[in-house]
Order: sequence, then C-alpha cells, then structure tokens
Amino acid sequence: MLRKKRMVPGTAMISKIKGKIEKAKTIGLISHKSPDGDSLGSIAGLGQALMEAGKEVAIFVNDKIPEKFGFLAEDNPYTLYKKGMAEEMDLVFVLDCGQPSRLDYSEVILQEAKTVINIDHHMKNPNFGDINWVDTGASSTCELVFTLITELALPLNYPGATALYTGMVTDTGSFMYDSTSPKTLRAAAELLEMGVDKDRIYQEAYQSRNFQEVKLLGDVLKDLTLLFDGRVALTSLTQQQLVDYGLDIQAMDELIDFTRDIAGVEISIVLKEMEKGGTKIGFRAKRGYKVDALARSFGGGGHEKAAGATVKTDLGETRKLLLKALEELLQ
Amino acid sequence: MLRKKRMVPGTAMISKIKGKIEKAKTIGLISHKSPDGDSLGSIAGLGQALMEAGKEVAIFVNDKIPEKFGFLAEDNPYTLYKKGMAEEMDLVFVLDCGQPSRLDYSEVILQEAKTVINIDHHMKNPNFGDINWVDTGASSTCELVFTLITELALPLNYPGATALYTGMVTDTGSFMYDSTSPKTLRAAAELLEMGVDKDRIYQEAYQSRNFQEVKLLGDVLKDLTLLFDGRVALTSLTQQQLVDYGLDIQAMDELIDFTRDIAGVEISIVLKEMEKGGTKIGFRAKRGYKVDALARSFGGGGHEKAAGATVKTDLGETRKLLLKALEELLQ
Repeated sequence: MLRKKRMVPGTAMISKIKGKIEKAKTIGLISHKSPDGDSLGSIAGLGQALMEAGKEVAIFVNDKIPEKFGFLAEDNPYTLYKKGMAEEMDLVFVLDCGQPSRLDYSEVILQEAKTVINIDHHMKNPNFGDINWVDTGASSTCELVFTLITELALPLNYPGATALYTGMVTDTGSFMYDSTSPKTLRAAAELLEMGVDKDRIYQEAYQSRNFQEVKLLGDVLKDLTLLFDGRVALTSLTQQQLVDYGLDIQAMDELIDFTRDIAGVEISIVLKEMEKGGTKIGFRAKRGYKVDALARSFGGGGHEKAAGATVKTDLGETRKLLLKALEELLQ
Repeated sequence: MLRKKRMVPGTAMISKIKGKIEKAKTIGLISHKSPDGDSLGSIAGLGQALMEAGKEVAIFVNDKIPEKFGFLAEDNPYTLYKKGMAEEMDLVFVLDCGQPSRLDYSEVILQEAKTVINIDHHMKNPNFGDINWVDTGASSTCELVFTLITELALPLNYPGATALYTGMVTDTGSFMYDSTSPKTLRAAAELLEMGVDKDRIYQEAYQSRNFQEVKLLGDVLKDLTLLFDGRVALTSLTQQQLVDYGLDIQAMDELIDFTRDIAGVEISIVLKEMEKGGTKIGFRAKRGYKVDALARSFGGGGHEKAAGATVKTDLGETRKLLLKALEELLQ
C-alpha cells in the first residue's frame, strides 16, 4: 500500500521555483482533462497571482468546463489550449495532474515546453516535471498553491482567492474527507478573510443539481435493494436510462456516495452501461472497509475507499461476477 | 429584520463567568429538546472541560438522543433530567437554547436554579439567564463554548473536543453555511490538532442514512415536478407514506434542502401531513430569495432562507393556499 506522505517544500525547492518564476516573462498553466474544482481552481489561483505579479500568463484548459464551474470561467481567462501555445512560454506549471496521460491531447507540452513545474497531490504522480512538488497528504492542489503563494509572497486577488477556495472545498467534500488537515482549515480561514464569497461558491458548485439527475435518482432509489444483509448497495444505470433522461455517462456521480452513506452499508457499487458496450464500475467503501483490491480484481484500481474499473462484460454479466467476488470477500 | 451581531465577551463577562465557575462545586448543563449536534456537543464539551477542572458536573438531557449522535452518548455521561436535579446545583449552564419553552418540562430550571448562565447563538434569545452571552453571528454554540474554554484556559479532553467539533460541523452543514467564519475554521483546526477523529464524526453523523428514508426519497423524487417555471420545488408527504415507511414526522429532513439545491429552484417547500390533522410547512430559499415573510403569512416564522409554519388546513387545502401565495410573491 502506498502511504500518504507530506512533502513540505524546503527552502531549496521554494527558491528553485522562485528563480524560475523570476526569470520567466511568459508563464502557462494547465491541468487534467475532465476538469474539476481543484484543477480549475489551482491554475486560476496561481495564474491570477502571477498576473498580479506582472507576468504574462496563459491559463490553459484542454476540455469543456462543467456548467457548475462556469462562475470560475466568468472571473478567469481560461483559454482552450492549442498545439504550440504552451511551448512558446518560458515556464509551464502543470497542476493537479496525477498522470501525463490525463493531459490528453495537451500531453505534448511535457516534451516541448522549456521548463515544467509539476505541483500535485495525487498518489503515484510519476514526477514528470523539471521541478516536482508532489504532496499526497495535501487536501488539494489548491492547498499547495496557497502555500506556494504565501511562501513566495505573491499578490493574491479576489478571483484567485475564490478559485483556490473552490478547489479546496470541492476536493475535500466541504472539509469532510480524511485529507482535510488543520493546515487546510487555516488556509480556508485566510481566504475567507481576503473576502472570498463562499456562499456564491457553494451555490454554484453544490446548489445546481441537474433536474434530470434528480428524477433518475428517484427511479434508482425506488428500486434500491441492499445485498448481503445490508452490507452492500449495488445499483446500475442502463444506457437506455441515461438516454431517456438526456444524461451522459459522467452524470449521476453523487449516487455512489449517496448509497454508501446508508446506515449499515459497508461498500457501495454503481454499474454504468457504456455507450459502446462494456460496463464502468465504481466502488466506494466506508471507513474500515476497502475496495481497492476488489477494483484491481476487475482490472481497475484506486484508493482503499474509492476505486473503479472498466470491464468489457455487459451489465448483467458484470453484476453476476461482482456478486461472486463479493461473496468471497464478505464471507 | 433582525441583524446578526457578534457579541464578543468582554473581560468583564469572562471574569463574571469565571467567578461563578470558581465558586461552584456542582455544575449542571442542559440544552433544548429534540437535541442536535450543537446542543449535545456544547453541553458535553463544556461539561467535560469543567469535569477536567475538578468540578462535580451533570450533563442533562430532556429528550431522546437521536441514533446518529449515539457516539456522543458513548463518550459522555448524559443524564435524563428529572425535576429537582438541576435546582440542587450551584450553577447551571443553559446552552444553545433560543427560547425557554424549548427546555420543555425542564424549563422549571430557569425559576428554581440558583444561577443560570445562558450561552447561545439563536436569534431572538430573550436573555433568560443571570448571565447572558448571546452571539447570533456565531456559527454554533460549540464555537462559543470553544472560545470560553480557551479564554478560561480550561482543560479540554478528547471527548470534549470531539463533542465541540460535532456541534460545529453539524450546525454549519460542514462549514457551508453563511455563519461559518474564519474564527470557526480556526477553532476547527485547533480541535483537529487536539486529535479529534473527524472521520468518525462524519461517519456517525452523516453516513448513517435511514434506508426507509432513502426509499421514500426515491418515491418523492420520482413524482417531483417543479412549479412556476422551475422556480419552486413543492413536495408533500402524507401520513400514509410516513406510516408505510415506518417513519415519523421528524423524518425526511434532508428532502427540503435536496430540492432547494436543484438548478433554477429559488424556493423549496415541503408539506408534511400531521398525525392529528393539519400540515407542517417547511420553507427554504436560495441566496437572493426570502421565505420568512411567506412563512409569517402562514402564521409561522424563521429566517430569510429557512422558515416554517404549522397550519390547521389539510395537505390539499394548504397546497392551494400556498400556490396562491406563491403566485402573488413571484409575479
């Protein structure tokens, strides 16, 4: 098992990053595809601070920004990355990106950019940068960016502070997850003192549930039965359901946590039938239980409490295989 | 409109409370009926600190402790209050109790106790104590108790710190609500540093959803239709539904927030048919909208964003009256 370890940037690393920033006139920032609050927040937070410090900054995205983070796009100049854009820059920050492949078509940056600084909190980040600050014990990359900005005494403006708070809140389930530390909470306190409007963030990121997802959730919960004496919640979504409700496979991402949080449930599993055949499996475990080995046995991977796999079998067959695997696991 | 104001206890109040504690050998603590995380947390938090300081302490409850707070009852000696118990004590703290009537049958304490110290964060607390510290800008009474314990340098043990964190987390929706301040987050950070196991708190307080409530939620969501161009979510629960699912009128308290958080919804309303006739109405508003006047027009009250009323009309009639009132409000 990988152990989380805190990597506190020493004076040497801070001054190395500082040196690179000082020498750069143009700086690019980018993160992973399928952007979330922490990826969008960290590139905007650091980007804004660098702009305030007088740098020429480009904040790149390589995918569509989800509607619920549209408020970040209002405040920050996200630019869709096109080949060549980052390569011209003196310095590129790749933030919150656990694997090079998660840069999708923009992965080329890693080869072509003059200097890459990799700041991240994901397990197994292979240190693909020229400078690598990977702290798997941090709640979020936004927390790391906040530390960097503080250490370098960069000026943080309102959009930047808002972006960082957004990433910290969304990557910790509003400070619920394990990874939330006293440092996280104190950083959040400082951001609030800078005037961050947290109510706006909560409204945009949490209070904008898709009505069709709510209706489909109703369908799914109505039919929900727990298995193995209530220890397992297993639900599935067909392509037909997704089509009927006008949703895509990314939708319904709350379902798996929702069913995990039923009293007595130890493991929750959600199966999603994929458009071109095969099944996407999500696994969640409550404290004290593990799903990473189970996910690996289906060719997937992940953390102890949150893992996943993609298999070629259809919904029915996958369900059968899962029941068998669960029987062995739970007996 | 009442404005929230912070009441920071001056040196005079702190030393008054200090004097009362020093003189007391026996100290009782009590809070409101229908206990929640903040009421149970604040009496246990302060109670534990006073015990550690060598006082003879009784932590009273006047109602059943909800299952999800059973973990607090494992760590803390809650005692069901019986008439006369608090009257014998040198000093009684009434915490997190906005109105004397919310003490239910234990309200007698206010007349009979030698000295009452009232610490609370509810609006309209009528200052019923001999010493009153009412700070309506505080996130929770637990936050106030944390301040008091710090100011008085009382020793805080593990169960006490856990109880305070529980109250702060549950009264702020995990630090989401307006009332969460930098001070709240810093207090939470200090409690984590004292070794509070926040994962246990989250698991107990949030990850133990009642399966029957989940099933009924499925029923309700399946039939959900939004009104007034999606601006209003109006749902209702019949006595028959509650009976069928083995739930009482207190159940399904997540529903109203869940439907408020649908994109485009400005106001959510949940009607519950009461056992002996009449209807309980809950109102919630998103940021920028208000429901307090609406609640008052039905003889109820509350805050701008969260209010309620109890009416004598049945579900159908109440619904009709509401639609009429909403039409006037929204046009």
